Amino acid sequence: MRATTIHGTRDIRVSDVPDPTITAPTDAIVKIVAGCICGSDLWPYRGENDITPGDTIGHECVGVVEEVGADVTSFRPGDFVIVPFDHCDNTCAHCRAGAQSGCVNLGFTESGQAEYTLVTQAEGSLVKTDGMPDAAMVPSLLTLADVFPTGWHAAVSAGVRPGGTAVVVGDGAVGLFGVLAASLLGAERVVAMSRHEPRQAIARAFGATDVVAERDQAGVDAVLELTGGVGADSVLECVGTDQSMQTAFKIARPGSTVGFVGVPHGVELPLRRMFRGNIGLAGGMAPTRKYIPELLEKVLAGGIDPGLVFDLTVPLDDVAEGYRAMDERRATKVLVQP
Amino acid sequence: MRATTIHGTRDIRVSDVPDPTITAPTDAIVKIVAGCICGSDLWPYRGENDITPGDTIGHECVGVVEEVGADVTSFRPGDFVIVPFDHCDNTCAHCRAGAQSGCVNLGFTESGQAEYTLVTQAEGSLVKTDGMPDAAMVPSLLTLADVFPTGWHAAVSAGVRPGGTAVVVGDGAVGLFGVLAASLLGAERVVAMSRHEPRQAIARAFGATDVVAERDQAGVDAVLELTGGVGADSVLECVGTDQSMQTAFKIARPGSTVGFVGVPHGVELPLRRMFRGNIGLAGGMAPTRKYIPELLEKVLAGGIDPGLVFDLTVPLDDVAEGYRAMDERRATKVLVQP
Repeated sequence: MRATTIHGTRDIRVSDVPDPTITAPTDAIVKIVAGCICGSDLWPYRGENDITPGDTIGHECVGVVEEVGADVTSFRPGDFVIVPFDHCDNTCAHCRAGAQSGCVNLGFTESGQAEYTLVTQAEGSLVKTDGMPDAAMVPSLLTLADVFPTGWHAAVSAGVRPGGTAVVVGDGAVGLFGVLAASLLGAERVVAMSRHEPRQAIARAFGATDVVAERDQAGVDAVLELTGGVGADSVLECVGTDQSMQTAFKIARPGSTVGFVGVPHGVELPLRRMFRGNIGLAGGMAPTRKYIPELLEKVLAGGIDPGLVFDLTVPLDDVAEGYRAMDERRATKVLVQP
Repeated sequence: MRATTIHGTRDIRVSDVPDPTITAPTDAIVKIVAGCICGSDLWPYRGENDITPGDTIGHECVGVVEEVGADVTSFRPGDFVIVPFDHCDNTCAHCRAGAQSGCVNLGFTESGQAEYTLVTQAEGSLVKTDGMPDAAMVPSLLTLADVFPTGWHAAVSAGVRPGGTAVVVGDGAVGLFGVLAASLLGAERVVAMSRHEPRQAIARAFGATDVVAERDQAGVDAVLELTGGVGADSVLECVGTDQSMQTAFKIARPGSTVGFVGVPHGVELPLRRMFRGNIGLAGGMAPTRKYIPELLEKVLAGGIDPGLVFDLTVPLDDVAEGYRAMDERRATKVLVQP
């Protein structure tokens, strides 16, 4: 099949690779209808994570079931499915406790920007729609594979509650979904920290009541001013750098929680501040499967338009241009059409 | 007045120092009935915190109100009061949100092992009993100044819930109160990690269902075996060293929370593990005043004997021996009688 592969820093290609095959009874093969590029794909793209040249890349997709293993009984060829980027059996002790990203049979989508992908633990992981969705609905459904549940996880982990003030650090796609999640969870004030006008516009469409364009101490000061010096009730850290984490803890009020979902890179936690201020840290890799059913319901009910986050669509053959556009911040999130 | 002072590493004396005086209308002076030595007093005692030679030391006490400032209307001379080690106005935005240790008018008891102590923010901080308590009740009431609410805070921060498994790392007095708290909060299984027999006995009296005497990886393995490989639902980190924090995160199951109340010294958080396993960190300096009313009710109701933690009582003149006994682990917690 044709698949996106990475060969070095800023070296993304489309290559012929072997088709995925069923090797375990819990596997399924999905023919991809739409995939996309994740902010976390930019870490290896920029040379900040180790890679094996020629590896496939991409972990977000939706598609149609092509083939299932013997133990997969709830899905059959032809079903339209959302493929959570982290696969889980949804039956182990960790899954039953709602920690699906800690599943003892954890797996990952490894070719989400391709023609096909393998889903391990298909029975526990996949979520299907009733029949084939309209093409117009596909981008919104695609957000359920990772970015929407991840933003949701940031908000849930940060303890967003009706009436409070939530501040989102990071205006990548995950941060924007943090804004949407905080808004849906009832935060009275949702502050998006964003310098980029196109992203500010999406943030406002997703429910941001305020935008803070300043960064670092100026951004902290702006949030403190907005909150009468008190700080935020909940902070969603949606980047993963030390800079964003320090900002998050500076704007978090005493007794609050920073919900973090950005893969941490070079972060040193301000432990003394956490201790003195009773500011907790919660979150991590999202238990995607846990959230998909409720978020799918919200998507199908209408009233929100998560697909708005895709401001560029490229055919699979042009996926390298999609990476360039995201790397250069010309695009917020790029949909890849196989 | 006579007060305990610190002059250098392992150099504790009883000195004549100026009596505390009312300087703000929110102040009160309390004549101490009983004080005690805290595990955190051992950090400066052992030379691990900077000190100013001659400073008073000690922050846990109960006593009788001697004098109050003009703004203190709920207390009068003669009232028996519990003095939370961290003073708060209990009216600011942080206090109203339950984060009293982040109070904008935060203060601390600075001469808890002495004849008198100054309480800033007395109106918001003090909690009185109905009349003078029996002498036999004083040790239990004394635990409410710090160690009991701090153990309670560890359990609350770790999300201890009825039916779960709580593991307490650290068998100092705070850890023992973590055991008591987890038990009172309904944990089905309360595991005390303790090598010291006298402390194991107190842990069992406080509700520990299991004791793990092994440390480090052997201790982690023992807890994992006790929990069928799953790990603990809640972990109470009651020490503050890197060793105890690493142990805490290794025994915490995915999706759980480590509640920490030991002042961190040289701790490096395992952030990757926290991210991958969705293991949160919450807690910090206890909002003592928040918990005192409900814990006082439990103490007065009987059925628990928090005063059991004091296995040595010394007169103020012998306070240095009290420090030695705690430093050498000959005593779990030392009551100081002015």
